[in-house]
Amino acid sequence: MTQISVIGSGAEHEERAEAVGRLLAERGAVVVCGGHGEVMAAAARGAKSAGGTTIGILPGESKSAANPWIDHVIVTGIGHARNLAVVASGDAVIAVGGRWGTLAEIGFARALGRYVVILEPGWELEDVPRADTPEQAVELALSRARAGA
Amino acid sequence: MTQISVIGSGAEHEERAEAVGRLLAERGAVVVCGGHGEVMAAAARGAKSAGGTTIGILPGESKSAANPWIDHVIVTGIGHARNLAVVASGDAVIAVGGRWGTLAEIGFARALGRYVVILEPGWELEDVPRADTPEQAVELALSRARAGA
Amino acid sequence: MTQISVIGSGAEHEERAEAVGRLLAERGAVVVCGGHGEVMAAAARGAKSAGGTTIGILPGESKSAANPWIDHVIVTGIGHARNLAVVASGDAVIAVGGRWGTLAEIGFARALGRYVVILEPGWELEDVPRADTPEQAVELALSRARAGA
Amino acid sequence: MTQISVIGSGAEHEERAEAVGRLLAERGAVVVCGGHGEVMAAAARGAKSAGGTTIGILPGESKSAANPWIDHVIVTGIGHARNLAVVASGDAVIAVGGRWGTLAEIGFARALGRYVVILEPGWELEDVPRADTPEQAVELALSRARAGA
Repeated sequence: MTQISVIGSGAEHEERAEAVGRLLAERGAVVVCGGHGEVMAAAARGAKSAGGTTIGILPGESKSAANPWIDHVIVTGIGHARNLAVVASGDAVIAVGGRWGTLAEIGFARALGRYVVILEPGWELEDVPRADTPEQAVELALSRARAGA
Repeated sequence: MTQISVIGSGAEHEERAEAVGRLLAERGAVVVCGGHGEVMAAAARGAKSAGGTTIGILPGESKSAANPWIDHVIVTGIGHARNLAVVASGDAVIAVGGRWGTLAEIGFARALGRYVVILEPGWELEDVPRADTPEQAVELALSRARAGA
Repeated sequence: MTQISVIGSGAEHEERAEAVGRLLAERGAVVVCGGHGEVMAAAARGAKSAGGTTIGILPGESKSAANPWIDHVIVTGIGHARNLAVVASGDAVIAVGGRWGTLAEIGFARALGRYVVILEPGWELEDVPRADTPEQAVELALSRARAGA
Repeated sequence: MTQISVIGSGAEHEERAEAVGRLLAERGAVVVCGGHGEVMAAAARGAKSAGGTTIGILPGESKSAANPWIDHVIVTGIGHARNLAVVASGDAVIAVGGRWGTLAEIGFARALGRYVVILEPGWELEDVPRADTPEQAVELALSRARAGA
């Protein structure tokens, strides 16, 4: 099954993240995220609205911190280091907004050779492709994921 | 959804592990394991034979190491430290055989307050309950998991 | 430089842990521990009383949790998973008391091929050697560490 | 003791990294790095040339991968996730060159509230201060570290 990681944060990006999650689910991809709120919750909510499957990879030691749209909760207990697992578990990664934690995730994703696309607006980083719309971001991520990145 | 972690290793324990996986799936629990071979593969195979859902939490950096019965692959990239995530992601834990990595998992599970049951034969540890059969192990794990451990 | 990890917990074991730390420092070994209290603090205190060097590997995200006898503080941010780093950083491991976290550390140490000796009293585990006195534990650990375990 | 993390990669940055390590040691700071080659080795070599102390935090499971200028080797076994420990263990962070792993480290450092300065040339990131020379980078890092960041 194709797994796409959706990363990011910021309440102002929730609408775009929800569209990303919905489009991924409509095209049969499982949505992987960090399991918490804002962009993570919106992506999962979008996926569930289209009948998709969601995985949340939490930093803490308890399932209870997962947002209500997570089907399968991974409790890592490793704090911020769970960011590595979030991007490593995706066949490709879509970044929606986000600050320092998202920067760490983009760095890890590329260190591992995962394809990353940044949905406008977001971090400006050389050698990381960008998409103007959720549709374009999903199209890029899925085409690269299914090509084996 | 109730998630039960099945841990352990040793080819001689595969039959018991497969029974554990099947019984868990028949009773509606998702099977979480380390995603590799022997006990981990057998538990996942058993769960799939009963139409269940399986999650494999890998130590390495690539999905390709997952056994073929894993539905959702978590790629952690953190080596043996993924043992923490394997047991933390279970509402309860069943140990089937196993050596040093399993000992680490039992230690972590109990440090986090997760219920652990050891299916005979296996590590002998004071204060860790034991079960004689897969049926008994599954019954104990599910009753404790659903009681909030 | 030879590094020996001292693991364990329990206030009733502090005197033995302090002796272990002192003896290791007298013989030129650096003491590695988890950086917190009880056995970890006692081992570090013992090492400093003999002019030794100490390293504390913390689970949290701040140096401030280190006990006052730690020279070099490693802040991992990975919670219980730091137990892996504690034992992996030792050329050999001495266990003094301890409960579930110590069990996880012994499991990891042996999974990585590190020599472990349990100072009486402590976990009873098949295939893990035991020592009756701090002197004997230190002698065993150093002889195995310097032989390349 | 003040600990400053030096991060980065790229053989073309070794001279600057060695100067950073030397200046830190001259001013009494312990140098923390990832323990491998290029920038990490150069920073440690510089520190040792000035009689300083060095800590290397390795991703793998064996001490043997440490460069020869590391005094204290931390073996984490957690792969790229050790990048979190590298920056968390610094009271401040100096980035010298570097690619994706360095980006992850900068992200983690800032997520944890650690001060980061990028020595020219290097990643261009909004809200991350820059220094033109090793002297300026060290001055900024130490002044912020000693002020409690």
